[in-house]
Amino acid sequence: MPSPPHEESPIPPTIEWMGDHIRLIDQRRLPDELVLVEVHSIEKLCELIFALAIRGAPALGAAGAMGVALASLQGRELGGVASLLKATRPTAVNLAWGVDRARAAADPVAEAVRIAAHDVAVNQAIGAHGTAVVPDKSRVLTHCNTGSLACVGWGTALRVIRSSHEAGRRPSVWVDETRPVLQGARLTAWELQQLGIPATLVVDSMAGSLMAAGEVDLAIVGADRIAANGDVANKIGTYSLAVLARHHDIPFYVAAPTSTIDPATAAGSDIVVEQRPGTEVVEVGGVRLAPEGMAAQNWAFDVTPAELVTGYITEEGVSDRIR
Amino acid sequence: MPSPPHEESPIPPTIEWMGDHIRLIDQRRLPDELVLVEVHSIEKLCELIFALAIRGAPALGAAGAMGVALASLQGRELGGVASLLKATRPTAVNLAWGVDRARAAADPVAEAVRIAAHDVAVNQAIGAHGTAVVPDKSRVLTHCNTGSLACVGWGTALRVIRSSHEAGRRPSVWVDETRPVLQGARLTAWELQQLGIPATLVVDSMAGSLMAAGEVDLAIVGADRIAANGDVANKIGTYSLAVLARHHDIPFYVAAPTSTIDPATAAGSDIVVEQRPGTEVVEVGGVRLAPEGMAAQNWAFDVTPAELVTGYITEEGVSDRIR
Repeated sequence: MPSPPHEESPIPPTIEWMGDHIRLIDQRRLPDELVLVEVHSIEKLCELIFALAIRGAPALGAAGAMGVALASLQGRELGGVASLLKATRPTAVNLAWGVDRARAAADPVAEAVRIAAHDVAVNQAIGAHGTAVVPDKSRVLTHCNTGSLACVGWGTALRVIRSSHEAGRRPSVWVDETRPVLQGARLTAWELQQLGIPATLVVDSMAGSLMAAGEVDLAIVGADRIAANGDVANKIGTYSLAVLARHHDIPFYVAAPTSTIDPATAAGSDIVVEQRPGTEVVEVGGVRLAPEGMAAQNWAFDVTPAELVTGYITEEGVSDRIR
Repeated sequence: MPSPPHEESPIPPTIEWMGDHIRLIDQRRLPDELVLVEVHSIEKLCELIFALAIRGAPALGAAGAMGVALASLQGRELGGVASLLKATRPTAVNLAWGVDRARAAADPVAEAVRIAAHDVAVNQAIGAHGTAVVPDKSRVLTHCNTGSLACVGWGTALRVIRSSHEAGRRPSVWVDETRPVLQGARLTAWELQQLGIPATLVVDSMAGSLMAAGEVDLAIVGADRIAANGDVANKIGTYSLAVLARHHDIPFYVAAPTSTIDPATAAGSDIVVEQRPGTEVVEVGGVRLAPEGMAAQNWAFDVTPAELVTGYITEEGVSDRIR
């Protein structure tokens, strides 16, 4: 059973089960080159995950499951393989989840393919529901990469914009560059180019001026985790956008699968924000820009309180609260 | 008559009259190297200004005046020299102002030295007055570079922090990196290192999270132009900080000489914001990060309405309004 078809998309699947091996996009080479890597061993897959050739929570869930599927076909001992895979990104809960799901299944290959197909189906439903919040010719601000590349192949917040485009709504996009790792400048910009959706790159700190100038009709972002009360953990910079959107009375939407909602997290204050290395701030594209020895703080995520969220777009529909 | 003494500072003057030539810091080499360039010709000075080896409104005012002084000593025709100098940065009003002031003076050398000395005196007064708004052990957020390097040798917003430090107030600084040109990461970080003031670099979009976490006691920024009603044009990102500061009930100060106040500009809406090349956004440190052909908007400044400004720190004192 192959992965779901993507023929209609100019962007190939982020990760795909090829019957006896895995094919994935090496995102380190984007936006300069679209390179598809054929993965025939667990060691190679681990190396690619560790090096961020593939990233994004839903994509990593599929990668973990497909890794176990590959190992099972090769007759390897699955306990050791599971440990190897999980160790590549110890804080990525989706990766461990995908590994465990495939290991627990009677047929790991079928389970991996099912996980990938389910991710695509959920994304498609998010896109279909989300189109309702995007009026004709909307100028949409987004942050980070929530597109095809973050998922198995369709995306969340960026999928809403894409679905609106495909539905003839003629959206145009303000792309936050998303320092420090520049997922907006590198990945979202590339995806929108491939899709032929009008898009303009800006530095993160210009978003407020765009809003003040009346150039933003709505903002749509993704989520890394949503607490039971609706507070949203997402890429650093999301919270500032939400405050600015409220100040300018601009709708602010969060698009994410319901699997992102964590009932065990009561509120955003319970979420521990990952602190990443300061070198990501001090260096850009491998070039050091700040003085040697400069201290830096690099909070990977921030938390947006539920009261700043206009609506949550999930595969179940659009709602102004988390139920 | 030499420039005012700077022996007490670990940072040499940004620009200095040496009796028969000009000495300036080549800011393109910072933060890696502190290089002082001796300038003996107008052509060399023009080249350095054009290439942004020296930048910052007050520093350019002195550079223009010293250029005319140098030309007058060398017996050159001052009309042609003035045109050459002004053409290097046609939108830099301070540069043209300095050129014209020195040309109109009976003794251009004395006038150039007087302009430089006045800039330092004004900065020192800003620092002295501003210390009143910085409580002991304040954690101060700042944006862009408003230090010694932007002026002849002392700075405005960063001078307030420095004066507070010298007065024993023990401030620590959150340094916004200030995309796209990274004046915060490159220049402000370097100055604070030289001065031994505790400082931590962050991406611009992290400021909101710092405020939400209770990590910011006040924000101090500079100004490129202040309208008669108190609206402030300053580096892109300033407006977002002001909105975020208000949302978190954090004092937001603007430090600038009264010469920055433009009575001819009634309100911020009258200020035309400079649009700079998109390449500054698409490329970082000469490395292209976004895909080839990606559109970008690069607004150099934004406008912060007066109602978001807690106080203006000028050489005349601290006031909650522009008179």
